[in-house]
Amino acid sequence: MEKFVYSFKEGKKEMKSLLGGKGANLADMTSIGIPVPQGFTITTESCAKYYEENKTLSEEVKKQIFEKLSELEKEMGKGLGNQEDPLLVSVRSGAAASMPGMMDTILNLGLNDESVVGLATKTGNERFAYDSYRRFIQMFGEVVMGAEYDRFEETLQQAKDEKGVKLDTELDAEDLKKICGKFKEIVKEETGSLFPDDPKQQLLMSVEAVFKSWNNPRAITYRRMNEIFGLKGTAVNIQSMVFGNMGEDSGTGVCFTRNPSTGENKFYGEYLMNAQGEDVVAGIRTPQPIETLNNVNSEAYSQLVAIREKLEKHYKDMQDIEFTIQQGKLYILQTRNGKRTAAAAVRIAVEMVSEGLISKEEAVLRVDPTSLNQLLHKQLDPNSKKSRELLTKGLPASPGAAVGKLVFTAQEAHDLAQKGEKVILARGETSPEDIEGMHAAQGIVTQRGGMTSHAAVVARGMGRCCVAGCSDLNISEKDRVIEINGKTIRDGEMLSLDGSTGEVFMGAIELIEPNLSGNFSTLMEWADSFRKLKVRTNADTPKDAQTAIKFGAEGIGLCRTEHMFFEESRIKAVREMILAETLEGRKKALAKILPMQRSDFRALFEIMDSRPVTIRLLDPPLHEFLPQDESDIIEIAKELNTTPEHLKQKISELHEFNPMLGHRGCRLGITSPEITEMQSRAIFEAAAEIAKEGKTIIPEVMVPLVGNLKEFENQKSVIQSVAELVKKEKDVEFNYLIGTMIEVPRGALTADKIAAQAEFFSFGTNDLTQMGCGFSRDDAGKFLKRYVELGIYDRDPFQALDQEGIGQLMQIAVEKAKPVRPNIKLGICGEHGGEPSSVEFCHRIGLNYVSCSPFRVPIARLAAAQAALKNKD
Amino acid sequence: MEKFVYSFKEGKKEMKSLLGGKGANLADMTSIGIPVPQGFTITTESCAKYYEENKTLSEEVKKQIFEKLSELEKEMGKGLGNQEDPLLVSVRSGAAASMPGMMDTILNLGLNDESVVGLATKTGNERFAYDSYRRFIQMFGEVVMGAEYDRFEETLQQAKDEKGVKLDTELDAEDLKKICGKFKEIVKEETGSLFPDDPKQQLLMSVEAVFKSWNNPRAITYRRMNEIFGLKGTAVNIQSMVFGNMGEDSGTGVCFTRNPSTGENKFYGEYLMNAQGEDVVAGIRTPQPIETLNNVNSEAYSQLVAIREKLEKHYKDMQDIEFTIQQGKLYILQTRNGKRTAAAAVRIAVEMVSEGLISKEEAVLRVDPTSLNQLLHKQLDPNSKKSRELLTKGLPASPGAAVGKLVFTAQEAHDLAQKGEKVILARGETSPEDIEGMHAAQGIVTQRGGMTSHAAVVARGMGRCCVAGCSDLNISEKDRVIEINGKTIRDGEMLSLDGSTGEVFMGAIELIEPNLSGNFSTLMEWADSFRKLKVRTNADTPKDAQTAIKFGAEGIGLCRTEHMFFEESRIKAVREMILAETLEGRKKALAKILPMQRSDFRALFEIMDSRPVTIRLLDPPLHEFLPQDESDIIEIAKELNTTPEHLKQKISELHEFNPMLGHRGCRLGITSPEITEMQSRAIFEAAAEIAKEGKTIIPEVMVPLVGNLKEFENQKSVIQSVAELVKKEKDVEFNYLIGTMIEVPRGALTADKIAAQAEFFSFGTNDLTQMGCGFSRDDAGKFLKRYVELGIYDRDPFQALDQEGIGQLMQIAVEKAKPVRPNIKLGICGEHGGEPSSVEFCHRIGLNYVSCSPFRVPIARLAAAQAALKNKD
Repeated sequence: MEKFVYSFKEGKKEMKSLLGGKGANLADMTSIGIPVPQGFTITTESCAKYYEENKTLSEEVKKQIFEKLSELEKEMGKGLGNQEDPLLVSVRSGAAASMPGMMDTILNLGLNDESVVGLATKTGNERFAYDSYRRFIQMFGEVVMGAEYDRFEETLQQAKDEKGVKLDTELDAEDLKKICGKFKEIVKEETGSLFPDDPKQQLLMSVEAVFKSWNNPRAITYRRMNEIFGLKGTAVNIQSMVFGNMGEDSGTGVCFTRNPSTGENKFYGEYLMNAQGEDVVAGIRTPQPIETLNNVNSEAYSQLVAIREKLEKHYKDMQDIEFTIQQGKLYILQTRNGKRTAAAAVRIAVEMVSEGLISKEEAVLRVDPTSLNQLLHKQLDPNSKKSRELLTKGLPASPGAAVGKLVFTAQEAHDLAQKGEKVILARGETSPEDIEGMHAAQGIVTQRGGMTSHAAVVARGMGRCCVAGCSDLNISEKDRVIEINGKTIRDGEMLSLDGSTGEVFMGAIELIEPNLSGNFSTLMEWADSFRKLKVRTNADTPKDAQTAIKFGAEGIGLCRTEHMFFEESRIKAVREMILAETLEGRKKALAKILPMQRSDFRALFEIMDSRPVTIRLLDPPLHEFLPQDESDIIEIAKELNTTPEHLKQKISELHEFNPMLGHRGCRLGITSPEITEMQSRAIFEAAAEIAKEGKTIIPEVMVPLVGNLKEFENQKSVIQSVAELVKKEKDVEFNYLIGTMIEVPRGALTADKIAAQAEFFSFGTNDLTQMGCGFSRDDAGKFLKRYVELGIYDRDPFQALDQEGIGQLMQIAVEKAKPVRPNIKLGICGEHGGEPSSVEFCHRIGLNYVSCSPFRVPIARLAAAQAALKNKD
Repeated sequence: MEKFVYSFKEGKKEMKSLLGGKGANLADMTSIGIPVPQGFTITTESCAKYYEENKTLSEEVKKQIFEKLSELEKEMGKGLGNQEDPLLVSVRSGAAASMPGMMDTILNLGLNDESVVGLATKTGNERFAYDSYRRFIQMFGEVVMGAEYDRFEETLQQAKDEKGVKLDTELDAEDLKKICGKFKEIVKEETGSLFPDDPKQQLLMSVEAVFKSWNNPRAITYRRMNEIFGLKGTAVNIQSMVFGNMGEDSGTGVCFTRNPSTGENKFYGEYLMNAQGEDVVAGIRTPQPIETLNNVNSEAYSQLVAIREKLEKHYKDMQDIEFTIQQGKLYILQTRNGKRTAAAAVRIAVEMVSEGLISKEEAVLRVDPTSLNQLLHKQLDPNSKKSRELLTKGLPASPGAAVGKLVFTAQEAHDLAQKGEKVILARGETSPEDIEGMHAAQGIVTQRGGMTSHAAVVARGMGRCCVAGCSDLNISEKDRVIEINGKTIRDGEMLSLDGSTGEVFMGAIELIEPNLSGNFSTLMEWADSFRKLKVRTNADTPKDAQTAIKFGAEGIGLCRTEHMFFEESRIKAVREMILAETLEGRKKALAKILPMQRSDFRALFEIMDSRPVTIRLLDPPLHEFLPQDESDIIEIAKELNTTPEHLKQKISELHEFNPMLGHRGCRLGITSPEITEMQSRAIFEAAAEIAKEGKTIIPEVMVPLVGNLKEFENQKSVIQSVAELVKKEKDVEFNYLIGTMIEVPRGALTADKIAAQAEFFSFGTNDLTQMGCGFSRDDAGKFLKRYVELGIYDRDPFQALDQEGIGQLMQIAVEKAKPVRPNIKLGICGEHGGEPSSVEFCHRIGLNYVSCSPFRVPIARLAAAQAALKNKD
C-alpha cells in the first residue's frame, strides 16, 4: 500500500516534492535531533489523489492519518480532545514551492467544550483557554466551513459594547465563554451545519480544506504569476502545539546564534517565562537576556546552547531561533537564517570561513550586495531617528544621509556652503543648471521624478544623498516654502534625509560615519577572485574617478561629456555655440571649449592611468544648456550680447515636445559635425599628450543614441578623420576604439549591422528602458508606483533591469553582434550596472563589464562574483 | 575562343548578366526589327577579365572590338575618323543592375581635326560640328584622361569675356575652333599627355575608362547602399550616333503610344525637322504634332506608326519613344514605359486588358497606388499653378488642394466658415483644441510637425488638405501674420495649398474636381479579387465611416474614442472628470459622458452594419484636454466653478516632460479603472441595443499601449466584467473581442505572452516607430529631413514603414503570437496602413488587414492586391 502519511521522524529533507518545503524541513530538523514539536505530514500525492477522486479523502489516507495521530498522542502523552491534558495541533499547508499566505492554516485544532477545560487547567489560565477556543471556532468556521467573517466580528463588538469596553483584552473568561457559544450558533446559521465537536472530524475537515485551498483563485493566480508549474498539490502538516504559558516552568523566547547587529560570534537573545510569543512582542513585560535562562532552567539552557551549535553547523549560517519551554521541556518552533545588518553579514561570512564552516565562495554568496550601501555611506543614527518627526517617504534615490538647512535654489546652496553651512537643497525637480548647487548641498530632496530622474542620477554619481519624487511635499521655490499636510516648512529650517530609505525628517539627526573594516576588504578580495565581469564606473570628474578607483573600479565605462559643459567657466561658451547663427560662429565658440575639454580628458586619463576610459560624445538636447527663468534669460542675454527676445526665440525654437526622443545624441553630431569634431579633437589631443610622455591610454570614443548603422558610420568617419589629423599634427601614435551606446530599441534589433563597424557596445539601459517600455523616467512616477503595487512589474524597471523585455533586447543585440565581431567589447553603463539582479543578467548574457556610479562599484563587484558563482556551468 | 563582344544583332534580351541591362535592351529592340542605331556590346566578363589582368585590355578583347567596329562601319556606310562622312559613336556603361549616373559615358567619340570637318559638311553646320568637338575634348579630357573641369570652364569664360558676350550660343564656329585648340593644350598641360587624335585609341581608352569607373568610390558606395552584390562588372555599349540636324531631310521627336495625360489610345507626340533633341526641349522653335510628319516624310511616319504598334505589343505598356531621322532614315534612340497621370494610368491599364494586351493581374500591377490620390481629391489646376508665386514647400501631409482666406485661430476659422467663407487655417502646430477649426477650414498649414503630427493625422482622417512643417514660414498667431523671407502675409489674404506636393502659393488658384471614372471602379474590382489583406479604415465619426465605406472599407480598424471627447458639448464633462478630486466626483462626470459615447458607438455600429469595428479605449494623456491659453483658462475655470489658480495647478500637475512616454494609454485605465468601465459600458450598451434589434455587431475592444501581459489582463478583466454586467442588465447576448494595440517595443517582444490573452493585435506603427527608433514625431522634423538627405533612412520612417527596424519588431511579434494563438486577428492601424510599400510588408508577414484613413482606402486596396500578386508563392 502506498504511504500517504509520514511522521516527522520518517521524513527526509530530500523528500521536498512529496512532503512539501515545510514538511521536509520539519523532518530534517527532527533527523538531526532538534526537539521540534512532533507531528506528521500528509503527502502532496494525497492531494493529487484527493482531486483525482472527486474531492474525497480515501479511506486509506484517513486510516494512515489516524495511525500517525495515535503515535503522536502516545509520544506527547496527550490525547486529541482529552479533557484533562488535551493534544492541540496546527494544520498547515506546505507545497514544494513557497506560496506564502496563499493557502489555509488552522491553529488550536482539538478544542471543544471538554478539551478547553483541560487547556484552562493545564495553563492555569481560563481566559487564555477560552480566547483560544473562540479564535479556533471562528477560524474553523470561516476557513473550513465557509461562514462570513463579519458576523463573528459583529458579535465580538457587541459583547464589548455591552460591557462598555474597547479592547478585546478587556473581555474576561466568562465573556469569552459566552462568545464561544454565540460563535457556534453563527456557524450553524451561516452554514446550516453544526460546529463539529469531534476533534477527529475537525482534523479531517481541516485536511480537506487545505487540499481545497490549493486550487482557490488566489493560489492559482499566485502560481501563474510566479510561474510555478508541475506541482502535484500541497502537503498538509499536522503538528502538535506547545504552550509557553503553562506556568512558571514554561516560557518562550527568540535567539540568534550570533549578534545580528555586529556579527560577533556570541549567543544572543531574550526570553520570558510563563508567556506566549506575542507577550515578548507586545513589550508589556521586559524579556530577559538569554544567558540568564541558565539560572532558571540550566538543562534547557545547555540544550539550547548545544542546539545553537548544531543548527549553525547544519545550516552553515547564523540562525534566528524561536523556542518554547512547555512544563520544563524545550521545543524549537522554528529556525531560519537570521536577518542581520550589512556589517554583521560581512563579519559573519568572513569569520565562518576562518572557522571552517563555509567556503570563500559561500561567504561571497552570503552578503546581499545592495546592503553594502550601509557600509559606504554615512547613516542617520537609527536610535535618534525614532524620536524625530517623519515628514514623508520618497524614493531612496541616492543612498547615505544628510542633515542641513533647507534651501530652494542652487545659488543659495552654493552661497551658504561657501560660508561653511550644511544645506539640503529642495527642488520641484532638478535640471542641469542645478548641478553646482547639488554639489554644494549635503543632500537633495525633490517633489517629482523617479529613481533615474536627473536628480537621482546626478546625486548617485556625486555620492550625494538624495530623496526623489516626494509627491506629498509641495515644494514652492518661489515662495521658499515646503507645504505638507497643511504644515509649512520655511527656508533655513533643519531637515534630515535618509537616502537609503527615502525618509525625510524634521530637525537634525545625528550621523554615523561609515566604517570599512578589514572583513570588508577580505570579502571583496574573494569576490574579485571569482567574478568574470569587469567593473567600471560612470565618472565625469577627476573626483568621481578617484572615489571610484578607491572602491575598486577598473576603468571608466561612461564619461558624460555634457556634465563638463555646465561649469560656470564654460557654460557661456556653450551657449555662444548654441546661439551662433553661422557655422563660423559656432566653430569659434567650439574653439573656446576645446582646451577646456582637452584638459578634462587629460586629467581623467592621468587618474585612470592605463585603465580604459569610455567617453560619450555630447548627448542631451541643446535646450538643456539654455536658461529657463525670465531673470536668468535677461542676465544671460546681456552677457552674450544679444537681446532677451532673441534668446527667448532661440529657446522656443529649440523647445521639444518629447526631448527624450528629440534632437539629441548622435543626431546632434550628424546635423552639426563640428561638435563631434571638437570633442574628438579634445579627446585625441589629450591622448596624444599622454602618448608623448610615453604612457599608454586607449580612449574609447562612444557615439550615443545610434539606432541605425548609417548614423554610426557617419560619426565614425568624422572621429577617424580627426584622430588621423591629430596623429599627424602631433607626430605621435596612439590607439583608440570607436563604439556606440545601444540604447535605442532599433539599435539592438540591428546590432548585427552595427557590430560590423563598431568596436564596442555599451548598453544604455536607462534609455533602452524608456524607449523599450515606453516610460519617460521623469513622468513615470505617476503610474509606475501603482504598477509595482499591482505586480505589473515586480520592481521599478528603472531600478532593476526588466529582463523579460529590455533584457530580451540586450540578448538579441548580443546574439546578433557576436557572430559578426566575436571580440566585440560589451558593457552596460545604465544605472542598472550597479544593481545586483541586473548585474547577474549581464553576466549570463556574456557582457564583458558593468559600469556604475562610484559608490555602487563595490556592490557591482560583489554582485558580479555572486553571478559567476551562481552560474558556474 | 571566348566571345567578348556582341553586335546588337547577336545579343538577346536574356543575356542581361553578360551584356548588362542596356546592352540586352538594345539587342532586344534590334531583334524585333526596331531601327536602333547599330553598335556592339563588350561583355561584363571582359570587365572582370580586365581587373583579373591587372587593369589591362587583353589583345583578344581588342581584336574582337575592332572586328565589330569594322562591321559597324560597313553597316552604317561611314568610317570612324573619316573626314568626309565620319562615324561617331557613344561609349556607355551598362551593368546588369541599374546604377544611374554612377559610371562614365562618352559621346561623339571619333571626332578629331579631320573628322570634324566631315561632320560640318554633312550637317551643313560648322558651328555645331566644332561645338560637338570641343565638348568631346572636354568630356574625354576629364573622364578618360583625368583633367580638371575648372580649367576648361575658365577658358570658355575667357573666350566669352574677350568677345564681350554672355552665352555659349553667342560664340561662333571660329571661336569654337580656337577653343578646341586651347582645350587640347589644357589636356596636355593637365595630364602630361597629348589628346589622342586616333579614334581607335580614343575608343580603347574610353572602354578602359568605363571599366575603371565600375570601381570608383561613388559606384562602390552606390552598390553597397543599394545592396547590389555578385555582379561581374559593367558591360560597355558602343553605339553609332545619329543626327537630326543633317539638313531638312533630318529631324527629331518624342512620341507616346497613347495620350499620357488622359490615357486615350491615340498616337501622341511632336517633332522638329533639322533639329537636335535639345532644340525640342529648349522651346525656341515650336514642335509640330506627330500626325503632320506624314506630310513631310510619309515613309518615316508609317514606319513610326508601325513601330508604335510593335513596341506596345512587345513591351505591353504605353511607350515614350525618342526618334531621330537622319537624312531621311528613321532611327529609334530610346523607348521606355511612359510616365502618365493617374487617370491615364487607370484608363490605359483597363483598356489594355480589353484589348487583350495584358491580363487583369498585370493591369492591377501597372497603377501606382499612391497616384490614386490625384483621383480622389480636388487638385490645383496645374496650368494656373505655373503663373503663381510659390511661397514655400512643406510636407505633403494630407492630399488634395485648398484655396481660402488666411486665418490664425480655430475660432476664426469656425466663425468665417459659418458665414460661408472659405478659409485656410495657419498654426504653429495644431492641438486637439483646433479640431473644430480644422474641420471648418478648407486646408491647414503648419510651421512645425511632421507627416504624423497632430495636424497631419487629423487632416488625413477628415480628408482635409494639409501642408505641415513649413519651417520657412514664421507663423505668428499673436500678431496674425506669416513672415517668410522678409515678406509679410496678413490674415484675410488668399492662399492656395497643394497637400499632395506640400506647395503653398499666394493667391487663389483654380481647382479641378476629382473624377472617378468607370475604369477606376473596374480596376478596383479586379484589385479586390486578388488581394488577401482586408482593408479597414481609421474613423472616429459617422461621416468618416460613411466616406470610407464609399471608398470600399471593410470595417473600422481604429476608432479613436478621444476625438469624440473634444466636441464642444462634451469637453466640459471631460474636464470635470479630469479635475475631480474624488473618485465619486470622477464617476459623476463620467456618467455624463456615458450616454454621449454610447450614441457615438451606436451610430458607428449602424453605419458599419455587420462589419467589424475596433474601438480603442482612451489613449492620450489627460492634459491634452485642458486649456493652455491664459484667457481660456480663466473662462473655463469659471465654467467649471473653480478658480483659475486651481485649474492652473492641475494643469501643472498633469504636465509631462515626455507626454509621448507618459501617463497615457492603458496606464490611464489601470490607475483610473472607472474610465475603462465607462467606455466599455458605452460600447456594450450600444452593442446590446443593436443586438435587441436582431442585428449583429461584434465590437472589438482595443486596449492601447500594452507593453506587458499584466497590463492587458488588468484591463481585460475590467472590460469583461462590464460586458457580463450589461448582458445581464439588458438581458441580451452579444459577442465581442478584446485585443490590444502593439505599439510599445516591449509589447512586440513579449507578444507570445500577450497573445495567450488577447484575441487580436493591431500594430500601432506610429508609436512603434516613435519608440523603436526613438523619434518624437513632433520633434523629428529638426533632423529627419537631413537623415533622408544623407541616406540614413531611405524615406521618412513615419511615411514608409522602416522594415529593417520597426518591421522586424512586427515580425517578431507575429512569429511569437501565432504559435500561441493560431487564429489571432492581426492588423495595422498606424498611418503606414495606407502606404503601398508598408502594405506589401504587412501582406508578407501575414497580417489579416490594414487600416488607414478613409481617403487612403482605395490606395490600400490596390497596394494589397499588388502585394498579393508580387508575392504569389
